[in-house]
Amino acid sequence: MTPLIEYEQASAQVRAVYDDIMTTRKTDYVNNLWKALANHPPTLERTWARVKELMGGAGSLDPVAREMIYLAVSVTNNCTYCIATHSAAARSKGMSEEMFGELMAIVGLANETNRLANGYRVEVDERYR
Amino acid sequence: MTPLIEYEQASAQVRAVYDDIMTTRKTDYVNNLWKALANHPPTLERTWARVKELMGGAGSLDPVAREMIYLAVSVTNNCTYCIATHSAAARSKGMSEEMFGELMAIVGLANETNRLANGYRVEVDERYR
Amino acid sequence: MTPLIEYEQASAQVRAVYDDIMTTRKTDYVNNLWKALANHPPTLERTWARVKELMGGAGSLDPVAREMIYLAVSVTNNCTYCIATHSAAARSKGMSEEMFGELMAIVGLANETNRLANGYRVEVDERYR
Amino acid sequence: MTPLIEYEQASAQVRAVYDDIMTTRKTDYVNNLWKALANHPPTLERTWARVKELMGGAGSLDPVAREMIYLAVSVTNNCTYCIATHSAAARSKGMSEEMFGELMAIVGLANETNRLANGYRVEVDERYR
Amino acid sequence: MTPLIEYEQASAQVRAVYDDIMTTRKTDYVNNLWKALANHPPTLERTWARVKELMGGAGSLDPVAREMIYLAVSVTNNCTYCIATHSAAARSKGMSEEMFGELMAIVGLANETNRLANGYRVEVDERYR
Amino acid sequence: MTPLIEYEQASAQVRAVYDDIMTTRKTDYVNNLWKALANHPPTLERTWARVKELMGGAGSLDPVAREMIYLAVSVTNNCTYCIATHSAAARSKGMSEEMFGELMAIVGLANETNRLANGYRVEVDERYR
Repeated sequence: MTPLIEYEQASAQVRAVYDDIMTTRKTDYVNNLWKALANHPPTLERTWARVKELMGGAGSLDPVAREMIYLAVSVTNNCTYCIATHSAAARSKGMSEEMFGELMAIVGLANETNRLANGYRVEVDERYR
Repeated sequence: MTPLIEYEQASAQVRAVYDDIMTTRKTDYVNNLWKALANHPPTLERTWARVKELMGGAGSLDPVAREMIYLAVSVTNNCTYCIATHSAAARSKGMSEEMFGELMAIVGLANETNRLANGYRVEVDERYR
Repeated sequence: MTPLIEYEQASAQVRAVYDDIMTTRKTDYVNNLWKALANHPPTLERTWARVKELMGGAGSLDPVAREMIYLAVSVTNNCTYCIATHSAAARSKGMSEEMFGELMAIVGLANETNRLANGYRVEVDERYR
Repeated sequence: MTPLIEYEQASAQVRAVYDDIMTTRKTDYVNNLWKALANHPPTLERTWARVKELMGGAGSLDPVAREMIYLAVSVTNNCTYCIATHSAAARSKGMSEEMFGELMAIVGLANETNRLANGYRVEVDERYR
Repeated sequence: MTPLIEYEQASAQVRAVYDDIMTTRKTDYVNNLWKALANHPPTLERTWARVKELMGGAGSLDPVAREMIYLAVSVTNNCTYCIATHSAAARSKGMSEEMFGELMAIVGLANETNRLANGYRVEVDERYR
Repeated sequence: MTPLIEYEQASAQVRAVYDDIMTTRKTDYVNNLWKALANHPPTLERTWARVKELMGGAGSLDPVAREMIYLAVSVTNNCTYCIATHSAAARSKGMSEEMFGELMAIVGLANETNRLANGYRVEVDERYR
């Protein structure tokens, strides 16, 4: 495992990101991903800036929809860390057990039908090109 | 490419599925995926039954959210056929260009951060297990 | 596209592989994959040696089973070239349309249930560890 | 981890699926996947119905071949749960260590050659289109 | 296909990115990816900013190594567009045919051995945790 | 987990591979992957022969570049075992923390832009075909 950089040992550059995470999320907890990325501060800064903007900034999609899209990708790629943390985030933003069940069912369906389309080598219909 | 089974040449079993697709979708068009799956009627029947239920049946998620989840998976897996047809379906159900842009940005972000979590070998925080 | 190395322009090292492909497969046709790999002769030699041994050599699995396993992977990964050529190979070795339909149904099922297991974060049962 | 629904706490709908699993498989054990899916009963019902039919129902492919195809996909996708349980299932249905070794070798080969075909951008031969 | 936004029809915001691409790359050509992303200007801006910095900015890795890493991912994911454009970029920065052959051989090897490690369910050695 | 074949219990064929691994790598340690593959000696032999040649033999790419390419694939595929062992190998051959950070940033970027190209269905520019 990558050593985690705790706040106490962190540089001023890293602390600024940790502070922004805690302020933005109204929490005193910084989760492990950020403490691992802190081993390479530019990646920490860039990644947090995009997560902050895309998952929490202004936009057309509501916060639960964003988390469910994020989960759909993470489940397809089998990223254990991302599934664990974003399941929690989606639930805290309002995803019910029923909604999670439907999400998983659609993720399963798409992963299946993607392969049927591949295996049967189906040409895209003229009207959908 | 797999030969497509047109309505005229289809068995009664296959025609019944084609009829249900057209009735359910209020269209006279059956797209190529179904005509390819018709080469194995049990797969045609099972797949349509699930698509009908999961993408269009009762549930907690609205139709656009379902299509966006489906797209998130298909883009991650790079299924050309599924991206083409479900982009069209999502738009016809109300996805705007702005919503599509945000969807793609989140799909891109998740595909990136999934790899950062993998590569940095981040252990799941106690509280998210 | 990678330029294809035709027999006439090929070096003696490349020709020896082409000759072995044609002799082994009892054909006068060398398909495009080999003509592309011929741009890097060591990769051509190594790859053909393994394909020859694993897909056609002695072993416990019959030739159709080997091709169906190969197809299950190629459909999961969406390799257009590999699906096209190995569908043909599987059929020439005895895969019926019915067998192909069942193969695709199981490939679809596994791609679906893999994601259900991921998303529901199911711990491996004690007895299967 | 998702909480597992044990038989004692399960609804009648869920118990009916558990009973069918145990009867079909001639065992008194229900493995964790089903107990996790029981959090969303429609997904439990649908998934078991398909697994029962595709992995154990009538068809052209023998039970070991079906399990090996399922394993080829699960290994390609790296689904730890599915690899663990279906390795056991395949062995119980007759897969020898030698057969498993050949299966893995072909899965490895296809995962390799899929990328060679991608990277060298090989066009599908006229005759295989 | 997504409609491409040409310079003439582009907004000032989009033109500024196109201008920076052409200046940075010392060319008068803007390739299709950017013209497609221009349908969602914030994604165009963010993506170009990161490509500019990560592929061309200061750092420890030389330009050819960066392109080969990028290609290794794109070939693994089978992104046709990315393979085509970054093969060209890598060659223009100094990748020889021999280097490309070795790159593809290692990409193939890793894709194979990744699956052997998955399928054989190999536990990480104490010393590498 | 697959039972590991220790040197003491190994056949002469397997011991010969273990001996070559230790000699080549100037170590008295054989890591778990090889002890697992030893359950199928032909796979052990073939895999080691290729790893030895491609990762350590003569060629145009330096040893660190080879390891970084291998890591880019393993992180994309999320192979825990391969990431752990090849991170160590890359570091022992000279990869700094800074180089690892840049590697991960590019792997993340490519995994993101691959999906943007997929989702926006970008046609390959004439000049890159």
